[in-house]
Amino acid sequence: METVSILLKNAIVLTMDEQFNRYEPGVVAIRDHSIVATGNESDLLNRYTAEEIIDCGGKIIMPGLINAHTHVPMTLLRGLADDLRLDVWLLGYMMPVEREFVSPDFVRLGTKIACAEMIRNGITCFADMYYFEEDVAKATAEVGMRAVCSQTVLKFPTPDATSYEESLAYAREYIQRWKGHPLIVPSIAPHAPYTCTDEILRACAKLAIEFDVPLHIHIAETAQEVENMRRDQNMPVVPYIKKLNLLDAKVLAAHCVHIDEGEIRTFEHYNTGVAHNPSSNLKLASGIAPIKRMLEIGLNVGIGTDGPASNNDLDMFEELRLASFLAKGASGDPTALPARQTLAMATILGARAMHLGDVTGSLEVGKSADLILIDISPVHNSPRFHHDPNSTYAQVVYATKATDVTDVMVHGRWLMRNQQLLTVQEGELLKAAGEYAIKIDTFLIKREKSLLSKLLALGERTEEEESFEVQAKVPVKDPQIVLSALINPEIQIIRTRHYRQYDVYFGFDAPEESHLRYREDHSVSKQGVITNVRTRLTLIGPSREHSYPKKVLLSRSRFLASANQSLRFYREYFKPTQEIEIEKDRLRYLVKFKDTEFFINLDTMNKPDLGYFLEIKSRTWSQKDAELKSQLVVELIKQIGESPEATISQDYIGLIKA
Amino acid sequence: METVSILLKNAIVLTMDEQFNRYEPGVVAIRDHSIVATGNESDLLNRYTAEEIIDCGGKIIMPGLINAHTHVPMTLLRGLADDLRLDVWLLGYMMPVEREFVSPDFVRLGTKIACAEMIRNGITCFADMYYFEEDVAKATAEVGMRAVCSQTVLKFPTPDATSYEESLAYAREYIQRWKGHPLIVPSIAPHAPYTCTDEILRACAKLAIEFDVPLHIHIAETAQEVENMRRDQNMPVVPYIKKLNLLDAKVLAAHCVHIDEGEIRTFEHYNTGVAHNPSSNLKLASGIAPIKRMLEIGLNVGIGTDGPASNNDLDMFEELRLASFLAKGASGDPTALPARQTLAMATILGARAMHLGDVTGSLEVGKSADLILIDISPVHNSPRFHHDPNSTYAQVVYATKATDVTDVMVHGRWLMRNQQLLTVQEGELLKAAGEYAIKIDTFLIKREKSLLSKLLALGERTEEEESFEVQAKVPVKDPQIVLSALINPEIQIIRTRHYRQYDVYFGFDAPEESHLRYREDHSVSKQGVITNVRTRLTLIGPSREHSYPKKVLLSRSRFLASANQSLRFYREYFKPTQEIEIEKDRLRYLVKFKDTEFFINLDTMNKPDLGYFLEIKSRTWSQKDAELKSQLVVELIKQIGESPEATISQDYIGLIKA
Repeated sequence: METVSILLKNAIVLTMDEQFNRYEPGVVAIRDHSIVATGNESDLLNRYTAEEIIDCGGKIIMPGLINAHTHVPMTLLRGLADDLRLDVWLLGYMMPVEREFVSPDFVRLGTKIACAEMIRNGITCFADMYYFEEDVAKATAEVGMRAVCSQTVLKFPTPDATSYEESLAYAREYIQRWKGHPLIVPSIAPHAPYTCTDEILRACAKLAIEFDVPLHIHIAETAQEVENMRRDQNMPVVPYIKKLNLLDAKVLAAHCVHIDEGEIRTFEHYNTGVAHNPSSNLKLASGIAPIKRMLEIGLNVGIGTDGPASNNDLDMFEELRLASFLAKGASGDPTALPARQTLAMATILGARAMHLGDVTGSLEVGKSADLILIDISPVHNSPRFHHDPNSTYAQVVYATKATDVTDVMVHGRWLMRNQQLLTVQEGELLKAAGEYAIKIDTFLIKREKSLLSKLLALGERTEEEESFEVQAKVPVKDPQIVLSALINPEIQIIRTRHYRQYDVYFGFDAPEESHLRYREDHSVSKQGVITNVRTRLTLIGPSREHSYPKKVLLSRSRFLASANQSLRFYREYFKPTQEIEIEKDRLRYLVKFKDTEFFINLDTMNKPDLGYFLEIKSRTWSQKDAELKSQLVVELIKQIGESPEATISQDYIGLIKA
Repeated sequence: METVSILLKNAIVLTMDEQFNRYEPGVVAIRDHSIVATGNESDLLNRYTAEEIIDCGGKIIMPGLINAHTHVPMTLLRGLADDLRLDVWLLGYMMPVEREFVSPDFVRLGTKIACAEMIRNGITCFADMYYFEEDVAKATAEVGMRAVCSQTVLKFPTPDATSYEESLAYAREYIQRWKGHPLIVPSIAPHAPYTCTDEILRACAKLAIEFDVPLHIHIAETAQEVENMRRDQNMPVVPYIKKLNLLDAKVLAAHCVHIDEGEIRTFEHYNTGVAHNPSSNLKLASGIAPIKRMLEIGLNVGIGTDGPASNNDLDMFEELRLASFLAKGASGDPTALPARQTLAMATILGARAMHLGDVTGSLEVGKSADLILIDISPVHNSPRFHHDPNSTYAQVVYATKATDVTDVMVHGRWLMRNQQLLTVQEGELLKAAGEYAIKIDTFLIKREKSLLSKLLALGERTEEEESFEVQAKVPVKDPQIVLSALINPEIQIIRTRHYRQYDVYFGFDAPEESHLRYREDHSVSKQGVITNVRTRLTLIGPSREHSYPKKVLLSRSRFLASANQSLRFYREYFKPTQEIEIEKDRLRYLVKFKDTEFFINLDTMNKPDLGYFLEIKSRTWSQKDAELKSQLVVELIKQIGESPEATISQDYIGLIKA
């Protein structure tokens, strides 16, 4: 007789191994952190004894559920905003609140609450993507759960970094510190192709490969994303990230709602893991991922809850049930995703998708003891049939509730016994969460009166132009001199436009600091004929992000919407307390100067009559680039024969007010 | 101060009335069975005192959930068979098991278990459709729940009736006995248009109108149903039932997955209620009902779980969540079915769909005190935001679990307090359910070896030909005499066919009593050319249903599948222990005799050489009709000049074996 640490007996053991071995009555033997044996009682009780023998009373023992994609700190934002358009939800609620509130403290609290909820729901392992990810890792390790914790990198400032260079540097140090931890796998998460640049995606892949850690990313979540990618790159999302060598890393791709047969095969070739998020994809109306086909081709497809702000909970039993139902409903085939296969997705396939298949996801000798006990005696799970060996899987997927999980073990350590959490106290956490909720409520109630929410509430196509521009403006005496100066071998003119711009600025009383601009552009042909009229609404924020020498400014543009209603409509809708009209005639040149593209605007201010201005602008995505371009702007002003000393920091509306 | 029976205070009261009034902290005042007042504490605590004042500790009080379509006794079949094709599931498992096991005892037990589960899940009222419905009513009334209990009527024999006339007679008596009961509304349920005849549908509508009770029916659940209706009736399902005056009754139409704009408007005109069953419709791959549009047009759309054999539980919180998610996902609009509207579906709209809107479904003065308490303090439902008044509805729909329901009251009586059931004991019931499960397991394990399951398992298009035929057979000396006799003013020949039929009968050892026939028909043109070959598999049952005078038989045909594989394949697949070949040449006449259609077959038996036979057949749906036709068959035999005394009771295979 061999002695082990713990023997769990009198259970229905679902191993979820390659052969789907099940034992009833079955035994799981555990020594320290690992599984030593699984099998029938009749075999194993003769071979093993243990320091602790636990009678499971006929419950199911199975591998803990794997939540393959989530944003755990967002438990603190659960129920913040629902039933909204994706852009209104994201840009109007989630991002502003995150900018304001997300901190290491917020992240640790949200993570602990999520861990408490996930343990209660039978989850032992999850793949997270958020900010201050080292704090997510710390909180998770303290509670004792297993996780891939992925530090987010974005092309615009985040709650934890003013630039992506900062995020990358943070991620490198974090990965170095946590690499090799028994529970936490540190990881990098370029948020999505459309929120990163090529440079960011390449750098993240390089880092992930250097440290051999997973790379976690959102892929093809919406049809719009794919359409934009086709428009801009002439290919769908997966070939694009493949071209950037991203798939050479151990990738976990979340969502993948809109990927085609070829893209699925590419994933198969690169052993890319997929996280399917059925609740989130329905709730945000993103679509239905082709899961049945992915599984047929052999992808490791796990299931995730996504963040609790778009779900609104961390209940994998709901996701299991929905994944199976949705695959049946979407394919018209009620045999699609049978219960056993769905349960495999939520266990072993999820572990493999997270590149943790050797460690967890099934009850096999040598793997970590990550397991749960489920009570199938409640009325909602009775009776029990035996004529079909698959019926136990069907019970778990179609009738079990998360609240039927009674015990949870991770890495050989009990995190819950008889529905009592052992490593995390909910009471204090919920109190602290309630305090955050009050602060966020206050912030939002004030903000609800803001222009942005009203703009978004219009329901017109609104885009956040989260671009940054380096810009400088110089009053000009004689525009002809500027025009002549543009004929210069250093300045290559790529494109010219001429238009008259009629702006109406809506101003508002405090506390609103933004302006809303109704803009009408009349394009003018060489013959002086109006060829096109375009109307737009732009929300212009109150502040400059940064100011460089010579009053070169880094500005951040905000929201842009097509204006399909009349000026009168917007006036009545937004009820501005002041209105300013500006009319200008603009010659706009797209030029290349020292290998960098700039816009040069030569403006004639007609209303009010302010004279002529030279404006130079260039888009930028990083601080380093912005610094470089701000120097080039100064040089370009000199080349055109104007004085950088004459730059003014005000925009036109500021000039008028002044 | 007015004294009432019970005051519930310190609660978040969601009234679900027309204005969606909510009170926090709120009060509900109850006298006897009814709601006397709802409102804010500050108002009502000064006006009312009570024999019992209950502090709800900040829980939500809302109307009990309404399960608008289910088959409650099927709790006993939960998990019996999953992940199967609809026909395999229905014809291979549900119907055979129901035929074998459904009895008043089965129905009462299953109902009580369902009531226990539903009370735990916060359901106070349901619409049922099953057999022995009076026993469903009895069990429900004993437990104290509210229900519309609908007696099923079908065109074929059911567990509780050998004919639809019997079902109708049973329903009439049952409705008479229960009409006016405070909790139970008796009702009639013609199962579906495709499982009833025009005559049945008309009779059911008449009965429902006579007693002013609801009529409960499955409508347009699958695309196939609509396609068949268009083929056979040249119209979709709703116009068809409208034509039969069915919609003049108070109809509750379940599923309605495949109805169009016009049909929705018809329902609106007739105040037809709809029961949406999102889980069942996905699980059985029936499709996604156009709920958003139905609500826009103003239908009363409730939500149902459907039976626990296709769900697999009676959890309305799962249905709520899914209804909302699915509407968003299917319409591509994340603002579709916002939480408040979804909760209305599960309460007041469901009550109206069941034609009980005056009695229950909202917390309003004068309505029955049917309400539940929900604890929203658990970790999976925290934190709580207040900036948007709709967030409480979102908490209920998106984050609440059924297990958060703590207290349930129906008709002023507590059925559950602090999660303790007060009117039903689960232990004994579950034990009895387990005993049924063992019997059903045994039955199915034996049956698994049967021909039917193997036939269905083939996955070819299998149809159950649940038709009944009256038939008689006479050996004939001279076929020319028969042919001449057909030229008769009493016999109108509608259609003639000529074909050679090659049958191979597979026989099997006991206990299998059925034969499987592989049949190849070669159609012969007038020129004697083979114009068409068709192959089919038919499962032929062992027994005759009934025998009329002169050896006229009532036979029930069984399953029919197209045979796309070779005879060799079927031989190897089914492994028959004996094979019999029969070849015949058949002249087949469709005739009208005394206003009734008959088939007259004139068969030349070539292999083995048995001579000539005259066969007369006619389809029938009711016992009365069968009796009439059996008499006509005898007359027709005489008209043709043969002797009814010479009829033989064997079929050809019987003749050969004899």
